[in-house]
Amino acid sequence: MPTTVFTEVAGRARAAATTLALATRAAKDAALEAMAATLLDDEAAILAANAEDVERARAAGTAENVVDRLRLDGPRLAAMAQGLRDVAGLPDPVGEVVRGSTLANGLQLRQVRVPFGVVGIIYEARPNVTADAAGICLKSGNAVLLRGSSSALSSNTAIVASLQRAAAAAGLPGDVVQLVPGEGHDAVKELMRARGLVDVLIPRGGAGLISSVVEESTVPVIETGVGNCHVYVDAAADLDMAERIVLNAKTHRTSVCNAAESLLVAEAVAAEFVPRITARLHEAGVLVHGDATFAAVDGVVPATEADWGTEYLALEISAAVVPDLDGALEHIRRHSSGHSDTIVTDSAAAAQRFTAAVDSAAVLVNASTRFTDGGEFGFGAEIGISTQKLHARGPMGLPEMTSTKYVVTGDGHTR
Amino acid sequence: MPTTVFTEVAGRARAAATTLALATRAAKDAALEAMAATLLDDEAAILAANAEDVERARAAGTAENVVDRLRLDGPRLAAMAQGLRDVAGLPDPVGEVVRGSTLANGLQLRQVRVPFGVVGIIYEARPNVTADAAGICLKSGNAVLLRGSSSALSSNTAIVASLQRAAAAAGLPGDVVQLVPGEGHDAVKELMRARGLVDVLIPRGGAGLISSVVEESTVPVIETGVGNCHVYVDAAADLDMAERIVLNAKTHRTSVCNAAESLLVAEAVAAEFVPRITARLHEAGVLVHGDATFAAVDGVVPATEADWGTEYLALEISAAVVPDLDGALEHIRRHSSGHSDTIVTDSAAAAQRFTAAVDSAAVLVNASTRFTDGGEFGFGAEIGISTQKLHARGPMGLPEMTSTKYVVTGDGHTR
Repeated sequence: MPTTVFTEVAGRARAAATTLALATRAAKDAALEAMAATLLDDEAAILAANAEDVERARAAGTAENVVDRLRLDGPRLAAMAQGLRDVAGLPDPVGEVVRGSTLANGLQLRQVRVPFGVVGIIYEARPNVTADAAGICLKSGNAVLLRGSSSALSSNTAIVASLQRAAAAAGLPGDVVQLVPGEGHDAVKELMRARGLVDVLIPRGGAGLISSVVEESTVPVIETGVGNCHVYVDAAADLDMAERIVLNAKTHRTSVCNAAESLLVAEAVAAEFVPRITARLHEAGVLVHGDATFAAVDGVVPATEADWGTEYLALEISAAVVPDLDGALEHIRRHSSGHSDTIVTDSAAAAQRFTAAVDSAAVLVNASTRFTDGGEFGFGAEIGISTQKLHARGPMGLPEMTSTKYVVTGDGHTR
Repeated sequence: MPTTVFTEVAGRARAAATTLALATRAAKDAALEAMAATLLDDEAAILAANAEDVERARAAGTAENVVDRLRLDGPRLAAMAQGLRDVAGLPDPVGEVVRGSTLANGLQLRQVRVPFGVVGIIYEARPNVTADAAGICLKSGNAVLLRGSSSALSSNTAIVASLQRAAAAAGLPGDVVQLVPGEGHDAVKELMRARGLVDVLIPRGGAGLISSVVEESTVPVIETGVGNCHVYVDAAADLDMAERIVLNAKTHRTSVCNAAESLLVAEAVAAEFVPRITARLHEAGVLVHGDATFAAVDGVVPATEADWGTEYLALEISAAVVPDLDGALEHIRRHSSGHSDTIVTDSAAAAQRFTAAVDSAAVLVNASTRFTDGGEFGFGAEIGISTQKLHARGPMGLPEMTSTKYVVTGDGHTR
């Protein structure tokens, strides 16, 4: 059973959502602009709160790369404010008529985008997510309950206080954005069991967080972001292009879900490509976990079965030779997390077969997996990348943060 | 942990789904036509199997209306066959390009409809659902695992045997349609916990079935069909029209989810409309559970708090006077199941406010709630009516039985 405190917070979110659902785009954009301005006005207070979190994390011996993700400074705060302004500039998804027709009997049928209502977001260290998520939810007409990492609690509390004050000053309920109260896993659990109070839950973070939410939640969940992404170099590949794509997909940014984690090479080009790409990967500082063919190259470590399913998020890659396209499809079917998989090929037939057969959120041809991204896709804002098949798949922008309803207008119609 | 038998069945469904996902529309339509023909060819065997179910149900003292839902005969079997042919005539949703653009960098982006993969359907007595669901799943490219009522096991076994034989004869894997093996709740539980093996689960049946699936399932669920539908007669209503709509929504067919279960009347027209509609409802044999104003009319029984949330599915209705439109919105917000709610009004402002504020799958103006239906909406086939906000809301046709993926084509694009 949810605690009284949680139920009360969720109830205020519902009331705020009811008001927000009817707000005009102008009112929402004004609130977003006010939020951006208030974040900057409150810079001193927010950075002071953040300094407490950083100090606590350092004292607890947190790794410096995690501390860096937690840390805010003037430029990062300015980027958060700019993110809110960017969302203000995007079209309002609410009210969009998705389809409409007049039926033979004269009934007018319209399917219209509407907000979900109350969205819960569970996320890890980065406090910038607090403002990003609040902005996207507000623009799509949803009240949001945020559950950040406890390591960022001071920062998140200060940021949410700013955002609430700004929303209220702009004439919307401050409760459109709230932190989930309480400590530790119990508080997360309340959010996950709040069916009826919360309409959808979006976990953002590592595989462990996401799978525990999926397992425990009775609230409908949108899974995001685990990416065991493959690059398949086909027999008909331009090997120069393949080299560029593999290196970009692996090394452009390693800590992100659309980075490549596994390389598959068609046997027909293995003799030429395996030594060549291995050398380039080694030059780039990438540790290669290879099958027998790759492991014959100096410096390659033999892959274990677990490597094929591993999302390294680091300068490491698994690599195997497959007999042909069918072998690649079979390997991907078995090991892909369904995020992004790419083929490098000059064969139209191979490209066609790969895009049809690979069952992933994004299937790419002659392009780096790094392009699977709301920004790259032109969505303007992104709440995450869905790797599930229900509701939204791939990068989620504002329209993916809405539901629809049918509005049916008659003049006394009966059956 | 799933049993070996279940895992094996689900594995065959996955293999069949992989083939089916790449099947052409012509191949799928040929299989649907073959299924229709084979059902008719197998009439004797299917009706004999059904007779066993009916006999067993009668021996167990099952209510005659339930036995009637279980019973098949020549015309009902012919209707099942015709349903399959109708689905063959509908457009194939798979491959539809939902959106597409060429990005500034030249990448070609397309969002394309693809099947879910393996769909599980849990349903109650009617054996005709077996063929309907199999047809809709096949056309949308999904393999289906069917879990019908154990009371219909002989019928469902015979029907599925026919459908499998027809699919195989038409060149598709017979495993595109299978029954979930095993007895009782344990078998249902396996289906509900088969995350990774089953992509989406659709329970069709009463509120108890649906809420237990929602509570226990780790597979993503699409909730269907519980309808506590309201008719609100506004101060500005044409009362003749209101009378026709209330009677139609309540009495046209009582056992369906889009039947009206609750009547709200604006205080301004209560003095005239309450006695008038009560008389007509009584003439139609409807038991009225009324608030104080309604209960002052002879024959009306006083409503309890539970009545406002009750889906009677019978000749019964709850009825209350509300102060005005805001009162109606408040009542609906508290008690509606989010299926279909209608306003009868001649006021454009009231209609606009009602359609904006009521958060249900279908919001109707001057039309009976009975119109919320895939057939009425022109979808050609319907797997159910979703009352949830994620993925699909309202009547679900073939497109709602698909996911999407992004296909991104470059010519060596890197970031």
